[in-house]
Amino acid sequence: MTTRNAQIDQYIEDNLDRYIDELVELCRQPSISARHEGINECAALVADLLRRHGFEAEVMASEGHPVVYGYAEGESPRTILCYNHYDVQPPEPLELWTTPPFEPSLRDGKLYARGVVDDKGEIIARLAALDAIRSVNGGKLPCTIKFAIEGEEEVGSPYVAGFVRDHTDLLAADASIWEGGGVSPEGRPGLALGYRGVLGVELFVETMTRDAHSGGAHVFPNAGWRLVRLLEALKDENEHIKITGFYDNVRPPSALDMELLAEQPTHEEMLRDLFGIKEFVLGRTGMALKEAVFQPTCNIQGITTGYQQAGMKTVIPAKASVKLDFRLVPDQEPDEIFAKLRAYLDEIGFADVEIARYGSMSPSKAEPDDPFVQLTIRTGEDVYGLPAQVTTLGGGSTPVYAFAGPLGNIPVVSAGIGYWDSRGHAPDENIRIEDFVTGTRHIARIIDGFSGLFE
Amino acid sequence: MTTRNAQIDQYIEDNLDRYIDELVELCRQPSISARHEGINECAALVADLLRRHGFEAEVMASEGHPVVYGYAEGESPRTILCYNHYDVQPPEPLELWTTPPFEPSLRDGKLYARGVVDDKGEIIARLAALDAIRSVNGGKLPCTIKFAIEGEEEVGSPYVAGFVRDHTDLLAADASIWEGGGVSPEGRPGLALGYRGVLGVELFVETMTRDAHSGGAHVFPNAGWRLVRLLEALKDENEHIKITGFYDNVRPPSALDMELLAEQPTHEEMLRDLFGIKEFVLGRTGMALKEAVFQPTCNIQGITTGYQQAGMKTVIPAKASVKLDFRLVPDQEPDEIFAKLRAYLDEIGFADVEIARYGSMSPSKAEPDDPFVQLTIRTGEDVYGLPAQVTTLGGGSTPVYAFAGPLGNIPVVSAGIGYWDSRGHAPDENIRIEDFVTGTRHIARIIDGFSGLFE
Repeated sequence: MTTRNAQIDQYIEDNLDRYIDELVELCRQPSISARHEGINECAALVADLLRRHGFEAEVMASEGHPVVYGYAEGESPRTILCYNHYDVQPPEPLELWTTPPFEPSLRDGKLYARGVVDDKGEIIARLAALDAIRSVNGGKLPCTIKFAIEGEEEVGSPYVAGFVRDHTDLLAADASIWEGGGVSPEGRPGLALGYRGVLGVELFVETMTRDAHSGGAHVFPNAGWRLVRLLEALKDENEHIKITGFYDNVRPPSALDMELLAEQPTHEEMLRDLFGIKEFVLGRTGMALKEAVFQPTCNIQGITTGYQQAGMKTVIPAKASVKLDFRLVPDQEPDEIFAKLRAYLDEIGFADVEIARYGSMSPSKAEPDDPFVQLTIRTGEDVYGLPAQVTTLGGGSTPVYAFAGPLGNIPVVSAGIGYWDSRGHAPDENIRIEDFVTGTRHIARIIDGFSGLFE
Repeated sequence: MTTRNAQIDQYIEDNLDRYIDELVELCRQPSISARHEGINECAALVADLLRRHGFEAEVMASEGHPVVYGYAEGESPRTILCYNHYDVQPPEPLELWTTPPFEPSLRDGKLYARGVVDDKGEIIARLAALDAIRSVNGGKLPCTIKFAIEGEEEVGSPYVAGFVRDHTDLLAADASIWEGGGVSPEGRPGLALGYRGVLGVELFVETMTRDAHSGGAHVFPNAGWRLVRLLEALKDENEHIKITGFYDNVRPPSALDMELLAEQPTHEEMLRDLFGIKEFVLGRTGMALKEAVFQPTCNIQGITTGYQQAGMKTVIPAKASVKLDFRLVPDQEPDEIFAKLRAYLDEIGFADVEIARYGSMSPSKAEPDDPFVQLTIRTGEDVYGLPAQVTTLGGGSTPVYAFAGPLGNIPVVSAGIGYWDSRGHAPDENIRIEDFVTGTRHIARIIDGFSGLFE
């Protein structure tokens, strides 16, 4: 370890209590986006925290909840944009928390609070890393740092893409550190290079204007059966989505992606036990299971038709609907897929089926050989002492796309402070203080390294 | 018309007010089987009414609600069993009734009350017919009449089959007049010779012990999709049910059945308008639509899986279930079909799917050339002045099978007092007084004729 890095690490250790205090302060402030609880108060507090750490900060209006913007100039011409969010999931069910969700509690080296890992701890860790760098760098930052801290991540970031489009100059950067990431069960730094996109829709089938008696099932068209035929037509039993042109823009994983996939553990036994699963989809296992993240999916979220209470009711349902989400891979686009879905339904005799469009996000993915990605991998290995575990493409969806593309296809990498039992979104959400320290050191190494000043 | 028949008709006219008063009395007594409201009181009242009309009557225990049994001996050795029920459907929604459901109201030649057509009016009409016959027959009945008046028809007659099996000697008869029937829109007497059977089941699919995040849709097995595959495997898009051996015992309609079907109107335009239907099942029309009642059906009553509230939820459901009813035709049996369904699911890889069995009834059908059937057709033409409209096989299901088979495959025919706007099960249930009179005359002709004394 270089003297500089040792000094940075020492600074983090010496000032740890101060950062934990700030994290406690931030977690005490509820900020539940789903019900607009404490949102404005929390945005103001985050802006205040940024200012305390030497940033210019502004609470900016968006179409939805405000975005906190932070800016601090650095020595090099390079800029890193830190994406975070100040909103949290609802804390319910409250009775499953050992201590109240908005009264942070330190026990056995862990800090418990709603939002402590997702994502307030990461905001404080980044500020701590920047303080530590300044302490060894004559009070200056080696590169320019911007923060975009949104307030609706937990409700699907409906307006952040518009916010970015409206402020591309303000947010301009060369690379971005995303939220998430942390340490794997094996102690390896967990990094994520991108996520699948998503398109949510609901399809509405109507065969009659009113339900009929099931004694007439040979006469009256059943909306439930028609929905089954529609679903059959959407995907075959080999998970192949039958929408015309659906796979046109699917980019297969690169050789480097495949190498990184090969190194990833699948934790199959753990997942089988946790979810009580006999067989994964299509009996996939090992490499096939990992590689499948590069395939788009068509998922049934729920089906609604007919009688659903106790016992039976001899009825032919007139209406049926299904909620679906399509997970999209590079380079599929939600608008493209929505148009192809509509055209396909028209083509195969379901022109009468109405489609409601819900949320959507584009896929987005950094390339593993990008220098910024390589830097985060290298510094991760340095700090954690073990090779990084790189998720080339996460199965879920985040608004990475809203930043990466509009800001000039910049590389975006998730690096954070969580661990496998952090319980994000769940009762007893927590971080291990040791992970907070290691994660903070990693962020400092990435920023220091990206400046290009100390190579 | 014979003098005897003219006298019978005159008696009915002369005493009509008395019968309407009795019907009002009976309809004032609520008897809602679904919530056991007024059941015992109504059974006692029905027994009392039978006694007032010269019957021995007994309120008999069953596994469920009591059955009112009535007996009056006749001159000939022949016996007719009248099946009726004293229970009614719940009257809700109350606000859609012009006058309260249990306060019978006579307006414009119609009597409005819950149960007035289904089935209390038919009880009184039969008693009126028997009085009329006695008035011209020296106070005697020409053949023996038995009544079996159950109290759970509106909840699927769950215990009546057991009651019949336990009392075959008591109920022994040569023929039976069933409830239902009435006058067609064209003024023809509507008769029904039988009904399809039914088997209700619910199938439960479980792929995991808990729901998963839809970002893992390439990994976690979706119970909704598995249910779709199961339904695909049950029935193809041509309505062919794929259960092995399902059609083994299907008896095709006879030449006489086909003749009667050919004479039946389909009321296609009316049904299209009433239900807002573009196309009937498989585009059936005319004879194909009518003939299809001799095919069994597999009907989706309802599907339950995953998220069903507003918007979307990125979830993979762990559980899914479907409620189905199979309508069965002669000579299929519910036990047989249930066993074949289980075996088929095991055979095609769905051994893990659990099946709950709900209600079931066997199909049952009288033959059109049976002398009792011919008698009801002939007397119907005589009374209504138009040819009978004979439903050879009704699409729905009734407990006819519970009587017909155990009592020695006796013929059972529905003949009644309803019309197309009687609104059974609905608000403003009503009968036309003129139909009550005509229906009563028809019942009298059937009983008189069946005695064999006046040929």
